Amino acid sequence: MSALTRFDPATMPQRHRARFVNALTGFKSANLVGTRDPHGRENLALFSSAVHLGADPALLGLISRPPVSERHTLENILSTGVFTLNQVHDGIIQAAHQTSARYPRDASEFVACGLTPWYSGTLDAPYVLESRLRLGLRLRETIPVTLNNTVLIIGEIVEVLTLASAVGEDGHIDITQLDAVAISGLDSYHRTQPLARYPYAKP
Amino acid sequence: MSALTRFDPATMPQRHRARFVNALTGFKSANLVGTRDPHGRENLALFSSAVHLGADPALLGLISRPPVSERHTLENILSTGVFTLNQVHDGIIQAAHQTSARYPRDASEFVACGLTPWYSGTLDAPYVLESRLRLGLRLRETIPVTLNNTVLIIGEIVEVLTLASAVGEDGHIDITQLDAVAISGLDSYHRTQPLARYPYAKP
Repeated sequence: MSALTRFDPATMPQRHRARFVNALTGFKSANLVGTRDPHGRENLALFSSAVHLGADPALLGLISRPPVSERHTLENILSTGVFTLNQVHDGIIQAAHQTSARYPRDASEFVACGLTPWYSGTLDAPYVLESRLRLGLRLRETIPVTLNNTVLIIGEIVEVLTLASAVGEDGHIDITQLDAVAISGLDSYHRTQPLARYPYAKP
Repeated sequence: MSALTRFDPATMPQRHRARFVNALTGFKSANLVGTRDPHGRENLALFSSAVHLGADPALLGLISRPPVSERHTLENILSTGVFTLNQVHDGIIQAAHQTSARYPRDASEFVACGLTPWYSGTLDAPYVLESRLRLGLRLRETIPVTLNNTVLIIGEIVEVLTLASAVGEDGHIDITQLDAVAISGLDSYHRTQPLARYPYAKP
């Protein structure tokens, strides 16, 4: 295992590099982001970039790619101030992946990909009925990353809908019970099994 | 599976909420960040917040927690301008978790946790010899998230060391071949198996 090879992303051809670099960070979450535009048209998009920012207040970030083409999710979040995050399980990975196709603004990815919009009454943004862990968020801030024109979208989690049986007495959620999947790179989906939990580390 | 329960993080007790909210984003990567301070003292810290920012240039982000206590990794990156990211595999999860203990500044987590520092010659930051996917990065920017005093650290990937046999002809890296693990919540480690890869989605 010690015979590693050195790679330099800067010297790779473009498509090769995109697949390579996308795999470097390791396993990623799979979440469908649900939004509506000011006319009520629903949008759904797969994001693998959700990142935990803090528990109090409960904040998470999403990376939106550069606005070289229409970015419906970012535009909808900016105009309505709300969005949902819906965890992808192994029964909906093909539909979830299909939401990443470039549909026109007036086509709903819910309809095109066979997923069901659902409203909790708390937020004016659509959840995915098929998802087993659904978060409702209010936009708190967008931070531009000028280095490459991406945008960090920060939302505050205002409600969570999940299976009560997956939530432990200590608050930990066993997402393997929800059949949550992990993404690697641009297009590789994985199931998982628990290896270990460790107590809070002390020197 | 439709009988979901509604949770509101804002009403949870603090430790319970920390575990709960940390699990909401889904599976996370496990990476050890290697740095040195200006005196050459080595530091190693587990991060589950690595996020892909772009392939050209090859950029990734890390979230550093609020500086309510000493943040050796952030301080070292700011003073030396370089760091390494070392993927955690299932053979080193216990050692990796142990790096999250609060060691004093003059104690090396490499020594305390039984991992081996290694230098490529390219960067003045220590890699983890036991890791099978190692990234060398130069600091490009730090962006403060004023909402909760976290910091987004952005690095450019200048070299990658991994097993050539895990890199496909299309550039995708099969990180299951490297026994890479996924983290859920604060302390839960998982192995993975591939479910599917899908082609670039078209409407």
